[in-house]
Parts: sequence; structure tokens; C-alpha cells
Amino acid sequence: MRNDSVTAPQGFWAAGLASGVKVSGNADLGLLVCPTGATAAAMFTTNRIVSAAVQISREHIESRKVYAVVVNSGNANACTGKRGLANARQMCEATAGYLAASPREVLVASTGIIGHQLPMEKVLPGIANAIPRLGDSPKAGLAFAKAIMTTDTRLKHAYREVKLARATVKIAGTVKGAGMIGPNLATTLLFITTDVAIGKSLLQKALREAIGGSLNRFTVDGHQSTNDTAILLTSGLAGNPRLTGQSAAYQKFLGALADLCTDLVRQMALDAEGATRMFKVVIKGAASIAEATKAARAVADYPLFKCAVHGGDPNWGRIICAVGSSGVDLNPAKLSCKLDDLYVFRNGAPTDFNPKVAARIVSQREHTITVDLGVGRFGDFYYGCDLSAEYVRINADYHT
Amino acid sequence: MRNDSVTAPQGFWAAGLASGVKVSGNADLGLLVCPTGATAAAMFTTNRIVSAAVQISREHIESRKVYAVVVNSGNANACTGKRGLANARQMCEATAGYLAASPREVLVASTGIIGHQLPMEKVLPGIANAIPRLGDSPKAGLAFAKAIMTTDTRLKHAYREVKLARATVKIAGTVKGAGMIGPNLATTLLFITTDVAIGKSLLQKALREAIGGSLNRFTVDGHQSTNDTAILLTSGLAGNPRLTGQSAAYQKFLGALADLCTDLVRQMALDAEGATRMFKVVIKGAASIAEATKAARAVADYPLFKCAVHGGDPNWGRIICAVGSSGVDLNPAKLSCKLDDLYVFRNGAPTDFNPKVAARIVSQREHTITVDLGVGRFGDFYYGCDLSAEYVRINADYHT
Repeated sequence: MRNDSVTAPQGFWAAGLASGVKVSGNADLGLLVCPTGATAAAMFTTNRIVSAAVQISREHIESRKVYAVVVNSGNANACTGKRGLANARQMCEATAGYLAASPREVLVASTGIIGHQLPMEKVLPGIANAIPRLGDSPKAGLAFAKAIMTTDTRLKHAYREVKLARATVKIAGTVKGAGMIGPNLATTLLFITTDVAIGKSLLQKALREAIGGSLNRFTVDGHQSTNDTAILLTSGLAGNPRLTGQSAAYQKFLGALADLCTDLVRQMALDAEGATRMFKVVIKGAASIAEATKAARAVADYPLFKCAVHGGDPNWGRIICAVGSSGVDLNPAKLSCKLDDLYVFRNGAPTDFNPKVAARIVSQREHTITVDLGVGRFGDFYYGCDLSAEYVRINADYHT
Repeated sequence: MRNDSVTAPQGFWAAGLASGVKVSGNADLGLLVCPTGATAAAMFTTNRIVSAAVQISREHIESRKVYAVVVNSGNANACTGKRGLANARQMCEATAGYLAASPREVLVASTGIIGHQLPMEKVLPGIANAIPRLGDSPKAGLAFAKAIMTTDTRLKHAYREVKLARATVKIAGTVKGAGMIGPNLATTLLFITTDVAIGKSLLQKALREAIGGSLNRFTVDGHQSTNDTAILLTSGLAGNPRLTGQSAAYQKFLGALADLCTDLVRQMALDAEGATRMFKVVIKGAASIAEATKAARAVADYPLFKCAVHGGDPNWGRIICAVGSSGVDLNPAKLSCKLDDLYVFRNGAPTDFNPKVAARIVSQREHTITVDLGVGRFGDFYYGCDLSAEYVRINADYHT
């Protein structure tokens, strides 16, 4: 079995188990450990209300080295006041204690229901039980991936290798997220491990760039959660010459990292709550990149369009409606829209397309919508997925 | 039978019938006529892409008098290019011809699928057939209300009377709209008739004010359509002293008009596609009215929250998440949230509320969510409705 889990890069251990936080008895506690100390980068939600875990990890990411990440699912530890903060700190303290690290050298992440206190009588024994299970096997890596899931129906992980000089650098990532996914991180816990030799600030830059074109261009329901967290850890053990900012080697590493993030986003899109199809909205001819982004997001987030995709219905009028409603500058007489390569609307008027061909395009597992606003030379894109009755069922009953 | 349809105010005739635009054979063509010539006010969608009907009516509303409004449902006549514009003009010309009016004295409105040319071979005979059916009976008014419906499951109309000096002023309205409803008009065709004596510019001001606190504070799926149109016609026949801007009589009329609009919004919310419940989101303690509006809309539009309401689930974490994600200024340590009168979150921490009581509140036909942002003294509100699996079914299959 090839290891393409988070334990694939050199110098990482992982574990995952059921601590009892989830009443279902599913796995809900994960540990990711770099015994030699990892250089770490992270991005967090821009929601004004953030979980206790995000508050603590924002502090701890400043540490020079990170020895572990402790994660629980089933409870977001958000909107839990001072007690929630104390609990998040205690998770770091307990983990650090087993590893002879400082609590500030441990990151913490939580995901699940908002507004309930963490059952620490389950979490702390969970951490204790995870320690002896730590290992670098694929199984250990997948156990970690499983422990971070909530309404996800599939494990999501991706693996890339890149040759830098004579060294083989490995990058592995796992992500959870199926709903409450808006751009700027998409609601998600994302953990990436690598063994590339790189400094902390350049690692942070690489993470920001890779996410900018992947998780930050993906929406399920347009909202960021209180808990979104992306963590990138490197053991630095690959043996490559340490990366520098403008080098070709850095660009090669960044390319692989970005590709891995896009792979994870596609997995998220197709496993989004109730989703059966995904799509990419490409905007061209915009007056600025910001306007292109805004228009692309307006289409990707528009419930009526998402329903039409679910029905395999080439209802392009809803695309035009969403673009027009988004407030961006456009030229009605030049506005055009394609489904994959099929023009359905050109220079402000419908084309004489074959509806069966259009329906076939929209019914694919993935398709691309291209809209030309006809006013400028800028573009951007967004990934999205369909909206199904199943999404409603999942989210009407999540609470209790 | 009391007449509370659009023919109730003095001086209006109406008709509605099936012209064949809808393949279902349901009514799809309506005429509203003021034989003595009405003073008219209107508001239109702010979508950058507007239907041919909106383009024509925006010109025609400048006329001093309006003799008729011709409406079709089943086809939006939007994104239909020059031919669509010619067809909308032709609808006005045909109607004007039967009434010895100028085409510029006729308004036109369309609603339905986007991007298909109007079948004029059905629309024109439909107008001809509607003329002899015009009448001022309740039945004629309701036939008009029926002809403007698309996915609406119920006729929506409201009626108010107001005494001004010795005159009884009547106001009646009918609205269609069940999906593609975002604020700034909500997607809708709204027709209000009255017999108040008032000048054109003050009538326009009254319409703007009445809609500002009703249709512009209501969202189903956050998008304006290409066709949103609100038309207010007065025959001026009530016999009241002509209203002036700052008078108590104007305020009394405006109060009744605004109340009628709010009544129609409630009917729309409870008949929104697949909706089973409605709610009002009230924001307090905001740094500005604009921020309060933004936060209220963020909650009302948030799919996860709408799903929770559908499930009767007091998942207040999603309310806090939406507010935090909206980008408005807030104080996490003072943030509070109530469901009706029950505090579920106070000063940044969950309260010890009874979940059964909370579930009972959320399971009502209507409830109010109040969020205090804790930073200022401004507030605003938004109406919304739940998101159901039925909404998806309706909108996945609308096209063909």
C-alpha cells in the first residue's frame, strides 16, 4: 500500500480514534505529531466570531516549532466563552505533556456543533489513548483523516511528490468540509504535511498562495464557519537545498502544493452535503479582478442556479440573472455565456443551441460556465456544487 | 362578496385568462385598466440585466397618465434581444389600440422563464380576448391576480381603507413571487390600485417608502430577478382633498399603503417556494443602519440557518456564524441572541435555556430572531423563510 496520507512525508506520526464526543461512536479525535519539531504555517477563518481553538492556535502558530496538532470533531468549541478557551488550552497542555513540548508548541482545531461546551472528560482520555497509537503507517494517517470528518461521507486526501535537486519532497494533505463552506478558506479543517526544507515566512507565503486559488475560490453555501483552519507543517527532512523566495525550486514546490489544494477542493465539491455535481464558473471581460471574483461567486452561490444544475437543466437565464444582480459592471449588448464550449447566449441574445446538447453538458459530473461581461480584460473563477434536497435534509436535522 | 381585489378602488377594471403561453393551460395574461387615466408610480429591479418589459415600462412610466397595465406570466421576455423589445412594445400597442390610448400610456410586465421569445401568436389574441372580459367585479380582480402567478400556490392580495376628511380612500394590491426573491423589490410583480387624489411625484415617494420597509426587507434566495416591477396606480376618484407632502393625511395614507405592502410580504414569505415557516431577523446595537441591514440579510439568506428553521431546530450557532461572517462590526464579548423572548446566547456565551422551549419557538409559523451586536445604537430587520427540500424540487425542474 503506497502511503499517500499525512504520514507519507518524512517525520510525521498520526493517530485517530473515537473518544466519545460524537454520540454516533465515530472517530472524533486526531493527533498529528512531528517529533523533531515542524516549521508551521496557518490560515484561519475571517469570521468575526471564532472558535476557542482558532483563538489559541492563532497565538501558538507564532512559536518557532510546532510538535503536534490536536483535533476534535463533533463539537466546534465556538461561542463557548471563557470555559471554551480554557478547554482549548487544556487540549494543548495535555498533548504537550505527552511529548515533552511546550503547550505553545501545540496547535488545536475543532469542528462540529456550535455553542456546546466540550466534554473534557471524554477529550482528555481520548488524547491519552491516541498517544500510544501514533505511527507513520498509511493506516495511522487515514485514522487521522477519518477523525476530522463531520458530515463528510468520504475521506479526502491527496498526495504529491516533487523533485528538488536530488531530493524527493513529499506533500500530503487531508481536508474535512461538506457544508458551511464559503470562500476565504472554505469551511474546513485542512492539514498538510511536507518535508521540504524552507523557512517559516516563505512557508506561510506558499500556503497563502496555494489556498488563494483553491479553497478561497470554492463555495458551498457562501459562509465561513467560526472554525476554518488550514495548517501546513514541514519537518524539513527531505534533504533539498533550503528554498528561497524567487527560486525555480520554490515555484516548483508551490505548483505541487497548489495542485494538491485544488485536488482537495474538487473532492470537497463532489462530497459537499447532498451534492451530486460540481462546476467551475469562469468570468472574463470584467473591469477588474475583484469584479470578476464577485460575479463568479454570485453565480456559484445562487440557489436557483445550483438547483438547476441539480436538475441537469441548462437554465442559463439564472446565470445571467445572478451576474446582473451581483452589481458588477457589464455591457448588456456584449454579454455572452457558454456551457463548456456551447454558446447559449451571445452578445445579449440567446443562440439557437440544441437544448439536448446543453442538458447533456449540465448533467455531467463537472462542467464549466464561462461568462464574458464585455467591458474589460480581467477574469477570475469559482468552484461550486449543486443544491439538492439532500442538503436540506442533512442541515434541517443536524442539531440534535 | 366584499371586493378586496384590485378592482375595489373606484375606477378600475381588470381581466385575466389563459392565452396559451403556459403549456399547463393556466391563466397567463392579465389586464388592469383605468378608463379615466391613472396617475402612476413604479419601481423596477436594480439587476443590470432587465427584461424587455422593464425597459419599455421604464420609458412609459414617464407619461402623465396610464390607462392600462398588460401582464403575461410563463415567459419573462428577458435576455431576448431586439425581438424581445419589439414584442414588449407590441403588447403595449395592441392594448392601447383597444382603449384609444397611446402605447406610451400602457405599462407592460412579464414573468416566467428567461431567454425564450414570447409566443406573440398567443399573446396578441389573449389581449384581444381579455378586452371584452374587463370588469370591476371581485371576480375580474381575482382573475387578474391569478393570471400573474408562476410557481405561487396561492393568490396574494390585500385591501385597506383609510378615511381622509369625508372621503374613504381604498387601496388594493396583488403580488406574485415565490422564488428568485432578493431584496430591493423582492422578485415580484406587484400591482396596487387606489383612488386617492395625489400628485405623481408624491405618489412615487409613497411607493418608495412603502416598499422600503416591506418588499425591500424580504429575501427568499437573495437575488433580484430581471423582471421585478412594482406599479401603483391611482384613479384619483376618492374625493379626498389632494394630498400634500407633509400633511397628516399623507402620513395616514402612507401608513395604510405600507401596512398593505407588509401584509403582501407575509403572504409571499409563507408561500415562498417550498416554504413552511417565516421569520423576522431584528438586528440591534449596530454601528450604522447599513451594517444592521447587512447583518440581518446575512442571517435571512443563510442556507444553513434556513434549513435549521425548516427542521424546527434552534441551531442558534448558525445565526452567530452568519452575523460573524457578514463583515459587520461587532463586540464578541457583548454579542447576544434571542429567539422571540428567549435568550440563547448572551454577552458572548450560551445561556442555560431549555432546548424544548427553543424548539417550540422555532417550530412556530413565524418567529423573531433578535441579535444585539453590542457596538452601537442602530438597528434594522429582514423577513425570510425556511429552505425546504421542496424548494430544490421546484427549482431543479422548472425549465422544461
